[in-house]
Amino acid sequence: MSERIYRDPVHNIIRLRTDTAEGALLVRLIDTPEFQRLRRIKQLGLALYTYQGAEHSRFAHSLGVLHLVRRVLDKLSERYEIKEDDRAAVCAAALLHDIGHGSFSHVMEAVAGFHHEAWTIAAVLSEATQVNRVLREYSEAMPARVASVIDGTFRPNALAQLVSSQLDVDRMDYLLRDSLMTGAKYGIYDLEWIINALAIDEANDRTYVMARGLYAVEEYLQARYYMFRQVYFHRTLRSAEAVLRSILRRAFELVTAGNESEMYLADDTAFARMIHGATLTLADHLEMDDADVMFHVKQWQRARDPILRDLSCRFIERRLFKAVDLDMPPTERTTFVCAAREAVEAAGFDAAYYFVEDQASDVPHTPYHAPTDTLDERKRIYVEDGYARPVLREITEVSQVARGLERGYKLHRICFPPEVKADIYRLYRTVAPPTR
Amino acid sequence: MSERIYRDPVHNIIRLRTDTAEGALLVRLIDTPEFQRLRRIKQLGLALYTYQGAEHSRFAHSLGVLHLVRRVLDKLSERYEIKEDDRAAVCAAALLHDIGHGSFSHVMEAVAGFHHEAWTIAAVLSEATQVNRVLREYSEAMPARVASVIDGTFRPNALAQLVSSQLDVDRMDYLLRDSLMTGAKYGIYDLEWIINALAIDEANDRTYVMARGLYAVEEYLQARYYMFRQVYFHRTLRSAEAVLRSILRRAFELVTAGNESEMYLADDTAFARMIHGATLTLADHLEMDDADVMFHVKQWQRARDPILRDLSCRFIERRLFKAVDLDMPPTERTTFVCAAREAVEAAGFDAAYYFVEDQASDVPHTPYHAPTDTLDERKRIYVEDGYARPVLREITEVSQVARGLERGYKLHRICFPPEVKADIYRLYRTVAPPTR
Amino acid sequence: MSERIYRDPVHNIIRLRTDTAEGALLVRLIDTPEFQRLRRIKQLGLALYTYQGAEHSRFAHSLGVLHLVRRVLDKLSERYEIKEDDRAAVCAAALLHDIGHGSFSHVMEAVAGFHHEAWTIAAVLSEATQVNRVLREYSEAMPARVASVIDGTFRPNALAQLVSSQLDVDRMDYLLRDSLMTGAKYGIYDLEWIINALAIDEANDRTYVMARGLYAVEEYLQARYYMFRQVYFHRTLRSAEAVLRSILRRAFELVTAGNESEMYLADDTAFARMIHGATLTLADHLEMDDADVMFHVKQWQRARDPILRDLSCRFIERRLFKAVDLDMPPTERTTFVCAAREAVEAAGFDAAYYFVEDQASDVPHTPYHAPTDTLDERKRIYVEDGYARPVLREITEVSQVARGLERGYKLHRICFPPEVKADIYRLYRTVAPPTR
Amino acid sequence: MSERIYRDPVHNIIRLRTDTAEGALLVRLIDTPEFQRLRRIKQLGLALYTYQGAEHSRFAHSLGVLHLVRRVLDKLSERYEIKEDDRAAVCAAALLHDIGHGSFSHVMEAVAGFHHEAWTIAAVLSEATQVNRVLREYSEAMPARVASVIDGTFRPNALAQLVSSQLDVDRMDYLLRDSLMTGAKYGIYDLEWIINALAIDEANDRTYVMARGLYAVEEYLQARYYMFRQVYFHRTLRSAEAVLRSILRRAFELVTAGNESEMYLADDTAFARMIHGATLTLADHLEMDDADVMFHVKQWQRARDPILRDLSCRFIERRLFKAVDLDMPPTERTTFVCAAREAVEAAGFDAAYYFVEDQASDVPHTPYHAPTDTLDERKRIYVEDGYARPVLREITEVSQVARGLERGYKLHRICFPPEVKADIYRLYRTVAPPTR
Repeated sequence: MSERIYRDPVHNIIRLRTDTAEGALLVRLIDTPEFQRLRRIKQLGLALYTYQGAEHSRFAHSLGVLHLVRRVLDKLSERYEIKEDDRAAVCAAALLHDIGHGSFSHVMEAVAGFHHEAWTIAAVLSEATQVNRVLREYSEAMPARVASVIDGTFRPNALAQLVSSQLDVDRMDYLLRDSLMTGAKYGIYDLEWIINALAIDEANDRTYVMARGLYAVEEYLQARYYMFRQVYFHRTLRSAEAVLRSILRRAFELVTAGNESEMYLADDTAFARMIHGATLTLADHLEMDDADVMFHVKQWQRARDPILRDLSCRFIERRLFKAVDLDMPPTERTTFVCAAREAVEAAGFDAAYYFVEDQASDVPHTPYHAPTDTLDERKRIYVEDGYARPVLREITEVSQVARGLERGYKLHRICFPPEVKADIYRLYRTVAPPTR
Repeated sequence: MSERIYRDPVHNIIRLRTDTAEGALLVRLIDTPEFQRLRRIKQLGLALYTYQGAEHSRFAHSLGVLHLVRRVLDKLSERYEIKEDDRAAVCAAALLHDIGHGSFSHVMEAVAGFHHEAWTIAAVLSEATQVNRVLREYSEAMPARVASVIDGTFRPNALAQLVSSQLDVDRMDYLLRDSLMTGAKYGIYDLEWIINALAIDEANDRTYVMARGLYAVEEYLQARYYMFRQVYFHRTLRSAEAVLRSILRRAFELVTAGNESEMYLADDTAFARMIHGATLTLADHLEMDDADVMFHVKQWQRARDPILRDLSCRFIERRLFKAVDLDMPPTERTTFVCAAREAVEAAGFDAAYYFVEDQASDVPHTPYHAPTDTLDERKRIYVEDGYARPVLREITEVSQVARGLERGYKLHRICFPPEVKADIYRLYRTVAPPTR
Repeated sequence: MSERIYRDPVHNIIRLRTDTAEGALLVRLIDTPEFQRLRRIKQLGLALYTYQGAEHSRFAHSLGVLHLVRRVLDKLSERYEIKEDDRAAVCAAALLHDIGHGSFSHVMEAVAGFHHEAWTIAAVLSEATQVNRVLREYSEAMPARVASVIDGTFRPNALAQLVSSQLDVDRMDYLLRDSLMTGAKYGIYDLEWIINALAIDEANDRTYVMARGLYAVEEYLQARYYMFRQVYFHRTLRSAEAVLRSILRRAFELVTAGNESEMYLADDTAFARMIHGATLTLADHLEMDDADVMFHVKQWQRARDPILRDLSCRFIERRLFKAVDLDMPPTERTTFVCAAREAVEAAGFDAAYYFVEDQASDVPHTPYHAPTDTLDERKRIYVEDGYARPVLREITEVSQVARGLERGYKLHRICFPPEVKADIYRLYRTVAPPTR
Repeated sequence: MSERIYRDPVHNIIRLRTDTAEGALLVRLIDTPEFQRLRRIKQLGLALYTYQGAEHSRFAHSLGVLHLVRRVLDKLSERYEIKEDDRAAVCAAALLHDIGHGSFSHVMEAVAGFHHEAWTIAAVLSEATQVNRVLREYSEAMPARVASVIDGTFRPNALAQLVSSQLDVDRMDYLLRDSLMTGAKYGIYDLEWIINALAIDEANDRTYVMARGLYAVEEYLQARYYMFRQVYFHRTLRSAEAVLRSILRRAFELVTAGNESEMYLADDTAFARMIHGATLTLADHLEMDDADVMFHVKQWQRARDPILRDLSCRFIERRLFKAVDLDMPPTERTTFVCAAREAVEAAGFDAAYYFVEDQASDVPHTPYHAPTDTLDERKRIYVEDGYARPVLREITEVSQVARGLERGYKLHRICFPPEVKADIYRLYRTVAPPTR
């Protein structure tokens, strides 16, 4: 028996037998340049400005997702028959689900106008990638099947749900990993109990959670909620993203305005093409990683353009923007935002780059709302209700906790240089607080 | 009371009060660009090629070291009087002990011919750095005092030992942190018990370990031994370093030979100056980080020079060299190494870059050997021997385990492309094994 | 410096300096027979029938509570002046808060008609105990002050709240300890963050939680909620308690009916006096522990009385009652309970001992309801609301999670021998489920 | 699929399918009264006097051992064919290996003159036990096969080694469990890595450790060594055992001398029969547990005999003997011991009960010494030596660490009442220390 072993801070040992068809496929996928690139992309982007330990890569996360899907499939195989082929497709999809991810996705996707899921599917389907070649060597149908897990059209749906749904191995891994790495404990939940409670509703081709797993799933939903509030939406992280976004926009506008000489740009790189506004090819996209961004921003600390130079220095030295939550009656919000913007400009800053309105929201549990919303239906969490008279129900019908979390979390802030903090705080204290 | 809090995967909460002189000093040091640079330098360099989770930075480690030295000082303050000023110097030194570290130190220090400790002292003493400015604002003597902790001339020596000795907070932090991040558990020991057992021998101005702490210290020494064998000297890590070293040497030699056009080099960067063989200034050194190396090696995947191009592709795609331990009678070693080198060349590889002899050694516990070796004496571990009749002894006098580890671990290997693995293994199997 | 060190599975090292007045007091209290008795009383009573690892004693828990209160007091001392004397009283109360606890309290308190808190206060105030003597040797006022922490009349109230309130060190310890020992993870929350966020509202003499601690407190409240549902109210635990209660009631009734010869009773023991219905003295109460109960029930496996004998065998061999939740419309409940009781009797069991209706409820967070309810007011959780415009609010005003948990958890079940399980399940399935 | 799940503090989830022959057997064995009795026997006996958290039962440990053997068997089944029947026997033996254990074994076995292993085999083979009945219902040969695993005659020997050898699941579980529960961390090692490195040498019918597992096994051996020194041989634990031994001897001698009226003894109990010196039957042995001992010692606090009374009070109130290590040149030992005994008697104590010489030794790794010592040979640890030229060697041939531990740990102490501590320490300080 030959095998490959990875040691992992979250799951300890991740073991892949290389003498089975599935194992050999997965090991070869890991060894492709497209997958190795994920080592150079941080899972949490700029979160390390808030939680200095959050330096883990998408590579480590993707291995964790693969590990979890295999554990779940092994467990389900005790009760259900799962075809070898379906299993391989689902495992490959779990491993590859992030290969289209770019560096600092939240910022770059907005600037370059793409979505990482589309790139993932492209990387799987394009015959130019090694990932595609390895998949095809397993079977001609494999690339399309893997892509269908990611786009949600794979059947059996129950297996696709393991990789992409409200309760999937992607979330299961990142909550634990991000918790461990940030040092914040909010994302910890009872993984073993959930794995043990997962089951398949064969009649409806969907997964569900056995009655005894309800509390563990509630805990998982709460974990997700708190991770959003405390980590993913942390004001320092969002503010760092705001600064980086201003930097990239400024670079883009300098180039557009023909002022490329004001700044450094490494010739003949995908990054330079992106800043020039070119339509990126798949190869371009897969060339870029965190080093491109960091290297250029470092050079831009000496740019001739004063805005690009100043913002780049702030970013590298971690002198980020401050942020204030717009927790006030909506009627007062517009007035406050205008006044704050004026304060920024009065202090001599170009508001186009130094004043950022930041909005985001997340719903830790998205239940079923409209019968036509078929995608959501396939991704919902169902639980067994009752011990002696069991029936499956959508979790919000059964759980007050899940219902409470349905509302999600809305973030609405403004970010601005620390130099105007006193001014804006003064304004802020004159505004009425929201009614509770 | 105002404070700053860091969450840490190893120590959980790292808290700094900003309303005390010491706290204010430390917070201001953390905010300098020189210290922020450590975010961009991985603690374990290329170890992530072996342990994908080993992505933590020297920034996170340095905060951990600071946290530990403060915990130890707080504990010792219950029994001993420690001057505020001494305490501040020791804390600052703990925080700053790595600021001179470069990217991928083991490789770069060999190529560029410097030692990080010298750069750390330079960064503390040079009036050009912000670190120096912040230290001087605390007191004029502070830069020199901090430097003296690092170079080992600080008095009281007992406090300097906390930062630099066989049993110091630097090792205490990195063993735990590297263990957690690699997922290998070899570096775990009983930190709390050691902190609790540390004491000061005031008569001799040195630290010692109370009798009840002996086993915890033995465990710590073993932890260090295993981390060297299993992580720091791991064949994949060393092989990745060998490849990177060949890449940098090749680039250097191309430039020296006037073939700079064969490859990309970002103008007007410290990294370019280093490849040109210029003597680096402190500012140059502090400009460089992991992004410079990664960005250039990525570009060199398209270099015109075939060796640089090939090696860079191998490095980026993680197709590293294989390695074989030279565990054989010394008499056979030279013959085998020659034969292996010939095999590499026979396969068409330039042995200057594709055949690497790798040697390293570590002694987890270095005891006292010669009376003149005063530096060592000040860094040794002393323990209390006996409960009812206590006396202090050097640990190897008391502990069979420490004595056993004195021998250390010698690594001697050759690295070569996987293409010649079969040939070299065939040669290897004809060589006699070492006698046990 | 002399000290005493305890190793603890939850808190690692619990250290007490014995050369300070406070430390000496605490060490001497630990060494009293009254406190040592807690080694022989399991914290979770019969929970080990559900979670075999839940075997920890009230002794271990009480040390943990002491450890936590000292950590919190140390932290608060950075900002607030805390009198040495107040501190000693609060620490002693934290240590002693459970010394009045009896063996299998939930069962015995019902049978013997007492409440452990009253016994705790008696043990502190009675001049006959060594605990009282040690406290008096610290100061004459000490026993009364310690008792006042426990009965809630101590001032400053903010310090008493640390030992007894909705957010006290008792709960903080038992959630973590019970989680670890059961292996269920439901009770884990972010202890360090809560300790770090606790503050004192000096104007109103109460504790509060700083804004940044809100999420950690929410997590703590949820932890408590899940521990109740999954551990403290677990059907097996409650069913074991039901069996033990039936055993003790049967023994009591045999004695009352003059049939003492039907069973073994160790002469001249407090346990025998209790079964005889005597009014117990403090000395009696402090004589009893888990061994008395277990030893007698073991002997009763050979009692002449068939009911006592049968129930004792079931208990010792862990053949417990089954349970069914009365989750049905209230209108159907009475009918169902009657029918179930009849089924038990039809099978030849005496329903007085073999049919148990079990009710319990808990409110993880009890908020403020009526202005006259002053006790509750002093035990409520207040949190800082808002960063730039902070004000203190009762937690349910701010936190939707806390509000959701206000409802608490009601348990209502019937327990019966497994022999009638099929019959009762058949009945149960004919009853309508509750409307959601 | 039906299953039974245990939550465990060490292994988290222990899952047994009840719809397989093996699972059904194991579940039924757990439910026997003989196995349930283990809930009432503490794994570490009196260790809780040293480590208050060490309260776990042999029941919890035995479930852990079962869990581990199943994990190892599952892992080995990937490579080797293991017969269903062999597997069931090995699993049952792992579960039952401790059912013959008595309460406070180290003390009781000495007093009552038995060995728990013999009782375990008796309980498995005797047709009077439910354990035997359940095993026979699986197959007639099962009782004998299970017994042969325990007595070391089972074939294949490789499987028996998993349950009983230098590297068996019994030790694997207790090191981790005792570490967790004591709070001492000395027994932690890399379980997952060892499980992953175990293999079978089919030619020689024995287990071995693959090359990559060497360091983990070294760590395991050291863990065992430290647990002996720091926990199992802790002076407080041994001293508590010494007191209990004196109590039981005194009770025995009172009865023998016809002074039974001096003390309480519960009629018609196995414990009373033991104190009377009767030969115990299997049923007697299986009747006794910790409650018998504790209940009687509690009563003996009021015995008329002053020695029994005094010792019992000391035991219950944890006023134990002090201990001094006899770490001195052998020539001086006898003189010192005599002098110490005289000091005890001079203080008015009966040395027969108040002066105890305590000796014990352990060898964490027992290697192969003599070719005739066939039992040892079958229990030795073999490891693969070398990567490219592997050969199996006994671990001490390969590992300096294992060689170092061969010497084991010898304990030699005297125990005496704290009242004479000053006298004996004075004597002790006049004795020369051992030469190092």
